[in-house]
Amino acid sequence: MFIIKIGGNILDSPGRLRTFLVDFAQLHGPKVLVHGGGKIASSIGLKLGIEPVMVNGRRVTDAGSLDLVTMVYGGLINKKLVAQLQKYQCSAIGLTGADANLIKATKREIKEVDYGFAGDIAGSEDVNVVFLQSLLQQGITPVIAPLTHDGNGSMLNTNADTIASVLAIALSKSFDVKLMYCFEKRGVLANTDDDKSVIHHITPSIYEELKEKNVVNSGMLPKLDNAFSALNQGVKEVLIGEANTLLDLNKQVNFSGTTLSLK
Amino acid sequence: MFIIKIGGNILDSPGRLRTFLVDFAQLHGPKVLVHGGGKIASSIGLKLGIEPVMVNGRRVTDAGSLDLVTMVYGGLINKKLVAQLQKYQCSAIGLTGADANLIKATKREIKEVDYGFAGDIAGSEDVNVVFLQSLLQQGITPVIAPLTHDGNGSMLNTNADTIASVLAIALSKSFDVKLMYCFEKRGVLANTDDDKSVIHHITPSIYEELKEKNVVNSGMLPKLDNAFSALNQGVKEVLIGEANTLLDLNKQVNFSGTTLSLK
Repeated sequence: MFIIKIGGNILDSPGRLRTFLVDFAQLHGPKVLVHGGGKIASSIGLKLGIEPVMVNGRRVTDAGSLDLVTMVYGGLINKKLVAQLQKYQCSAIGLTGADANLIKATKREIKEVDYGFAGDIAGSEDVNVVFLQSLLQQGITPVIAPLTHDGNGSMLNTNADTIASVLAIALSKSFDVKLMYCFEKRGVLANTDDDKSVIHHITPSIYEELKEKNVVNSGMLPKLDNAFSALNQGVKEVLIGEANTLLDLNKQVNFSGTTLSLK
Repeated sequence: MFIIKIGGNILDSPGRLRTFLVDFAQLHGPKVLVHGGGKIASSIGLKLGIEPVMVNGRRVTDAGSLDLVTMVYGGLINKKLVAQLQKYQCSAIGLTGADANLIKATKREIKEVDYGFAGDIAGSEDVNVVFLQSLLQQGITPVIAPLTHDGNGSMLNTNADTIASVLAIALSKSFDVKLMYCFEKRGVLANTDDDKSVIHHITPSIYEELKEKNVVNSGMLPKLDNAFSALNQGVKEVLIGEANTLLDLNKQVNFSGTTLSLK
């Protein structure tokens, strides 16, 4: 089965989004879509007088920002994706971590930075796998917003890459899971200025080498760390590449982006 | 089983909402919650520069307003209700009509008024009853926002009273359904200025009489028409009363509000 994460760069472009959703609907087998939406949330927030505060590339979620992301991720973006997938004969259901207690998290402990209502997921045991399986067995495709809940009445804001990785780990106990991060580049690049310099295969030892030689862009490191953490916990493969290569996954061809595996 | 509709007057008051949700969580048997939220949508809309346009008490939904209600109903209000119900040990799931193709509708035809992206539901056959039953069998409580979809990629804005009534009709084929509209008064009043003048029981013939004598407030008529339409299509009972009487439904006592039945 496939877990596909799409980020803001696709959500922001109606044309690319439509192409992506048509392809996603055609992807064979059980599948889950995880989406972000930070840029859209920030732009609506500005109109509402909510200034985005970012520390180390992560949003600080005060009460107003929590309402904002709950509206934008859980409502606007999520439901538009679902309505469009229904059009393409993919019976989608939009969910946050609160729905059916899908993903429980803990409000991030205040250390150097107070991230506010940011939710950290302890592990894949905090995923309601039974419910996800029931949906997949009914042919229903979960579309998941980057929101969790604390079990004590509050929503929490959680990074979409992390949600995709935790779901992949949780489902890998029952399925052969491939996790794909769709982003704006062709894959992990050896030279960020050269779009053709895709590194096609990364194993843990190659990853160590790339880090030592400072080849990998620092913005890429959290994604790769997340990916190897997923592989170490049972996920079969992690793929990183452009959204328009999605349907390669239906074919027995080499993936044109980056494939990560343990060996 | 129970289908409970709550309106804006409860959603606007955190204290009353908490009491209501604690009670709702304790309601025996399978249940569905349907919510409105027009006032909250209007107030957030004003901040975003979206002026509410109402004709005959119904919102005109242009593209901006559709985004607004999708965010506010489908995200903000819906997910906050779900997160709070999880706290009270009620495993809730928040849904719109697009999710799992739960309720399909048609964009309202333009006659004298163009209501924009307003969705009319043809009938209870447009409800995905199989999916609702699967949730209820798993002990999961659907929390439904007043949004539908057209099957062609667009969300639609649909009146919450209507959604509650259509769901009640659809589920009455498999369950004995009681539909309760929770609102700010004790029930249907003989004298709108006297909160104690509750009419405890209304049948179709009593309803005709009340209408002839102009006893019923005009704002109440659509709710009552909806209610009798539900009764005529298989719903057992429709109850109209204050939210704080909800737990009377667990007991074998007379309901203190208004009960509507065919005889």
